[in-house]
Amino acid sequence: MDATHLVDITAPLQRAEIIAVGSEMLTPVKTDTNSLFITGVLNEIGIEVASKAVVGDRIDDVMVEVQQAIERVDLLVVTGGLGPTDDDVTRDAVARVLGRQLVEDPEIVERIRARFKRRGFEMPEINRRQAMVPVGGTAIDNPNGSAPGLWIEHGHAEARKVVLLLPGPPRELQPMLRTIVAERLAGRTSGARLYRRAINITGRSESHVDEALAPAYARWLAGQPPVSATILAALGQIELHLSVIAPNEASAREILDRAVADVMSVIGADVYSVDGESMEVVLGSLLKQAHLRIAAAESCTGGLLTSRLTDVPGSSAYVERAVIVYSNEAKTELLGVPPAVIDEHGAVSEPVAQAMARGIRERAGVDFGIGITGIAGPDGGTEAKPVGTVAIALAGPGGDDLRVRTFHFVGGRAMIKFQAAQAAMDMVRRTLAQRQHTAGSAEAARTAS
Amino acid sequence: MDATHLVDITAPLQRAEIIAVGSEMLTPVKTDTNSLFITGVLNEIGIEVASKAVVGDRIDDVMVEVQQAIERVDLLVVTGGLGPTDDDVTRDAVARVLGRQLVEDPEIVERIRARFKRRGFEMPEINRRQAMVPVGGTAIDNPNGSAPGLWIEHGHAEARKVVLLLPGPPRELQPMLRTIVAERLAGRTSGARLYRRAINITGRSESHVDEALAPAYARWLAGQPPVSATILAALGQIELHLSVIAPNEASAREILDRAVADVMSVIGADVYSVDGESMEVVLGSLLKQAHLRIAAAESCTGGLLTSRLTDVPGSSAYVERAVIVYSNEAKTELLGVPPAVIDEHGAVSEPVAQAMARGIRERAGVDFGIGITGIAGPDGGTEAKPVGTVAIALAGPGGDDLRVRTFHFVGGRAMIKFQAAQAAMDMVRRTLAQRQHTAGSAEAARTAS
Repeated sequence: MDATHLVDITAPLQRAEIIAVGSEMLTPVKTDTNSLFITGVLNEIGIEVASKAVVGDRIDDVMVEVQQAIERVDLLVVTGGLGPTDDDVTRDAVARVLGRQLVEDPEIVERIRARFKRRGFEMPEINRRQAMVPVGGTAIDNPNGSAPGLWIEHGHAEARKVVLLLPGPPRELQPMLRTIVAERLAGRTSGARLYRRAINITGRSESHVDEALAPAYARWLAGQPPVSATILAALGQIELHLSVIAPNEASAREILDRAVADVMSVIGADVYSVDGESMEVVLGSLLKQAHLRIAAAESCTGGLLTSRLTDVPGSSAYVERAVIVYSNEAKTELLGVPPAVIDEHGAVSEPVAQAMARGIRERAGVDFGIGITGIAGPDGGTEAKPVGTVAIALAGPGGDDLRVRTFHFVGGRAMIKFQAAQAAMDMVRRTLAQRQHTAGSAEAARTAS
Repeated sequence: MDATHLVDITAPLQRAEIIAVGSEMLTPVKTDTNSLFITGVLNEIGIEVASKAVVGDRIDDVMVEVQQAIERVDLLVVTGGLGPTDDDVTRDAVARVLGRQLVEDPEIVERIRARFKRRGFEMPEINRRQAMVPVGGTAIDNPNGSAPGLWIEHGHAEARKVVLLLPGPPRELQPMLRTIVAERLAGRTSGARLYRRAINITGRSESHVDEALAPAYARWLAGQPPVSATILAALGQIELHLSVIAPNEASAREILDRAVADVMSVIGADVYSVDGESMEVVLGSLLKQAHLRIAAAESCTGGLLTSRLTDVPGSSAYVERAVIVYSNEAKTELLGVPPAVIDEHGAVSEPVAQAMARGIRERAGVDFGIGITGIAGPDGGTEAKPVGTVAIALAGPGGDDLRVRTFHFVGGRAMIKFQAAQAAMDMVRRTLAQRQHTAGSAEAARTAS
């Protein structure tokens, strides 16, 4: 049979399923992560992953899953269960479902034997199992382990499907998949690929974003090629994932850029990134561009805000110091917050947040100061100021109180901390974006006049 | 129908499948993680997870998966796809497979409306979809979101199966599942349960722990009932998970306590918790018990150490303030680190870490001071001090330099930060544990004499 010939007569592969075999991935502590890598590689060549599954080491369970998958997708990737021991059942399960006999390949036996020999060992007899190949299948070399992969085609002519078996360890699986994609899979796809864009939004609920974008969804779906959208509520933000199957990157970019413009025209400044960048990365870029520095005085966030800011490589350009002030004494000693203000308004109040922001800005000698004070819980809440109440203030050049707001976050302690840090960064981001916009408009006005 | 009666005539639930619905989990960037929590909770009541699946937001795909699952397991847990929008298809898919009509529940509509009102919003009309309940199903209250869960029984008498629909966000799903397990699921199982113990270990590699425990493994497996052990390398620690299937908690506790004692006798002080508690919780308890307070001066960790310390409820008892000092000026101004020490040894050095530790201890007026200075990367490394080099010092009562050490961590920026924070807490933990031990021995000596 001639592989080149097959390419011509076979329908392109479009939909894949990934099955991970291994009982350890059905425990509370381990899950399948190979599928993320596999999905990325398949998406690059235009194959969409339609579903994923994890099954244990019982041959019946593996057979059921393989049987069902082969009915609904063109490409089935099975990972794991190719080792030499009794609980490695993948080869047997697939061979039975496809109705093929397993035959020992003497060449593979020799390769495995040589591999053991190089390390000064005799090959244990059980490793012969790894040399079993279903009739009609092709072994795939594994440069980093003893278990070869297997490539099996199933069905005839236009309905021909591919079943691919790969070992579970990532360092074995990854180079093998790369090779297979280049040498075998890429030639079996339509040429079109899946391209994505992730848009991050703050300050709106999922249903508000959804309602606002409903007319755009309809337009996108009616487009040729259609753009699909998925909306996700994450902690402190809403994510909108756009994807399109396009013949090349340039056309994908054009289509996705147009969809992003649609989103921007409806959601505006609530969009903080159009390519999946995190809040700390977006804010960091804005600060760096404008040559501005920032310092935080954190109470309830306990350092999380500054830790997130400094998760970004190169953040020392705009973060130089910060203070964490849990007690009233620390607020007064390190930031000069007047005890009278704390007495009058309470430690969790807008005037205290403002005094903290002004204090850290001045003492750190930077452009912007942030003050955060709140009740992260689970104790400390009152009727007037329940757990989740957080006051955030931003002081700007000259010590001006630029913004201050009291938030009411829900969730546990860690979630309240995260949302408060997110809201504080968003406050700075909006201020900088506005300044940039204003500066841009002034520039435009000057140019026009 | 009487729920109590059903319990009597129905076979115990033993095998579950978890289906996660959501196209975003079929991308290269996101996967289902709810299944880990769900597996843990189900295992606790003796239900095994036989397989897991992820499907996209296409109703046909969800229907196929639900149909297949319901044929092979007793309990089907479907997560996600219960939102108000068009791509939330779970309710419809399950209702179709089970042949039930969906009917709007006016009480749920009112609950959702009230929830929006509390936040000052009108309920968008699309949220009515979340009030649709399949005939014969029961809505499950969601204290943290608008989407109620659904409990549906399917089939008759001994073959009765349970289909459980839960919203995707973990903070909504987790409390709902806990409630359902207590109120409905626990009464439907055989009574034997899986009990686990997670032991956290620092300062040893996975293979060292594995070798040291090999004799114990064999003993545990030969026991009646046998104890299984899984060893996992996590960031900054090794986790050893022990599990046993036992008829009741008392006997499980006895068996697991014995296994934990085996581990302690081999691994000793490198074990920092025997019930899965995090380092910050363990350290917090030690500090609270001893009425000691701590303050950190953080450079490369950027606030992560103090943020983790303050993730623990009640941490204000032992954390009062901290400083984040990225620049040399900040180290000198806020901590009194002599510029000459920085010049002579470099900012990333043990003498500077020690000066930081002493400085924060004294200025904060607390018992222990921690100084952390290092290179989190990706830039800033040199041949002598590559990325990942972190000096950590601990100053104790009287300003004594108690410990200082230079670590060489691997991984990206966030991983280096995490490991440095972990190592700093472990340094304090070991010091406190030793003091406790010494105090205990002195006490014992006094009592004996």
